[in-house]
Amino acid sequence: MIASFEAGIKLGALFHQFLGVPVSEKNVELLEKAMESCLKLQPYVVDAEVRIEREKLKDVSDFGYTSLSPEMLRARVTVEFEGERVEAVLEWNEKLRYPLMRLL
Amino acid sequence: MIASFEAGIKLGALFHQFLGVPVSEKNVELLEKAMESCLKLQPYVVDAEVRIEREKLKDVSDFGYTSLSPEMLRARVTVEFEGERVEAVLEWNEKLRYPLMRLL
Amino acid sequence: MIASFEAGIKLGALFHQFLGVPVSEKNVELLEKAMESCLKLQPYVVDAEVRIEREKLKDVSDFGYTSLSPEMLRARVTVEFEGERVEAVLEWNEKLRYPLMRLL
Amino acid sequence: MIASFEAGIKLGALFHQFLGVPVSEKNVELLEKAMESCLKLQPYVVDAEVRIEREKLKDVSDFGYTSLSPEMLRARVTVEFEGERVEAVLEWNEKLRYPLMRLL
Repeated sequence: MIASFEAGIKLGALFHQFLGVPVSEKNVELLEKAMESCLKLQPYVVDAEVRIEREKLKDVSDFGYTSLSPEMLRARVTVEFEGERVEAVLEWNEKLRYPLMRLL
Repeated sequence: MIASFEAGIKLGALFHQFLGVPVSEKNVELLEKAMESCLKLQPYVVDAEVRIEREKLKDVSDFGYTSLSPEMLRARVTVEFEGERVEAVLEWNEKLRYPLMRLL
Repeated sequence: MIASFEAGIKLGALFHQFLGVPVSEKNVELLEKAMESCLKLQPYVVDAEVRIEREKLKDVSDFGYTSLSPEMLRARVTVEFEGERVEAVLEWNEKLRYPLMRLL
Repeated sequence: MIASFEAGIKLGALFHQFLGVPVSEKNVELLEKAMESCLKLQPYVVDAEVRIEREKLKDVSDFGYTSLSPEMLRARVTVEFEGERVEAVLEWNEKLRYPLMRLL
């Protein structure tokens, strides 16, 4: 239960910390790495992966970049607490029109 | 020049602080007031108005709310510094596909 | 397990969405209500309470307000998923020097 | 005036986007680079530098990291608009107890 709680914290934090960050093809990789580093710093995280969809970075605004939006963000985090290990993901669900977070 | 600088700070801050905040028709008015209160607290602000587009809150996700996005946020701030008064607005520009901030 | 996961999401989201928001005794109550409204909008939340410590709003900066910091934020959220009900809190822990989130 | 306005936007945005981000000596350099990349992506920015004070990352919480706070963030941005060039900085002012942003 605590591992699940901790996994939830990490995904909720990631989404609300980084939404709105200026992103383009130029800095997308750097941002992914920075976001992963923030996840890995937090308690009980054993692995983390962040992916910003390149497809959604094409043809954005006239200024050549956009703000990170829920539609383009995917993440996966693995948390371990006292031997209990859980994996959770954040992924935009087009049908629900919602950035769905769930335990695997 | 300083008044313009200060007006820019306020709009940049507003956008990046509140993007992603959970919003629906239920709490939209409360959020607007809270955002205005944050603007008015900051140095040299003499007036502020925030508007979240109701039209864009209709028919959002299956969960009945959405994350505040650049497309739905409008703000106007008036700043005065040593007798210099400027007014600035933030408004989504559909043609540029960009949350444009400009001095009036 | 899912209720715990969901409770974690809510507290992680709250902390990282609102940290840095301009706050003083003037708008503290409004901010608390706005933050509670954001918690209550999210899936499976049945109750939520947010408290910003008044004591830490006294004698802040020369400009009469400050940025919301981890030391001043407390929250409690109750989540229910398929009959499973959990309560979780966020509270600054002075000994650990950390904004501790935990299941009750 | 527009260059000053734009410089203000960038510093306000930086502060309110990244405050609260998990940081330690492990990811501080990566975060600085990511933050600089976000500044440089924005309109009219010709140069940008972000510095998180290492001194304030020592001996933080029991969990080995902390949330980025106003006291530890410094930034400098150079903006050019139609031949007008301005430089602005964000720096914690201990006397005012405030993250002061100013034009150079």
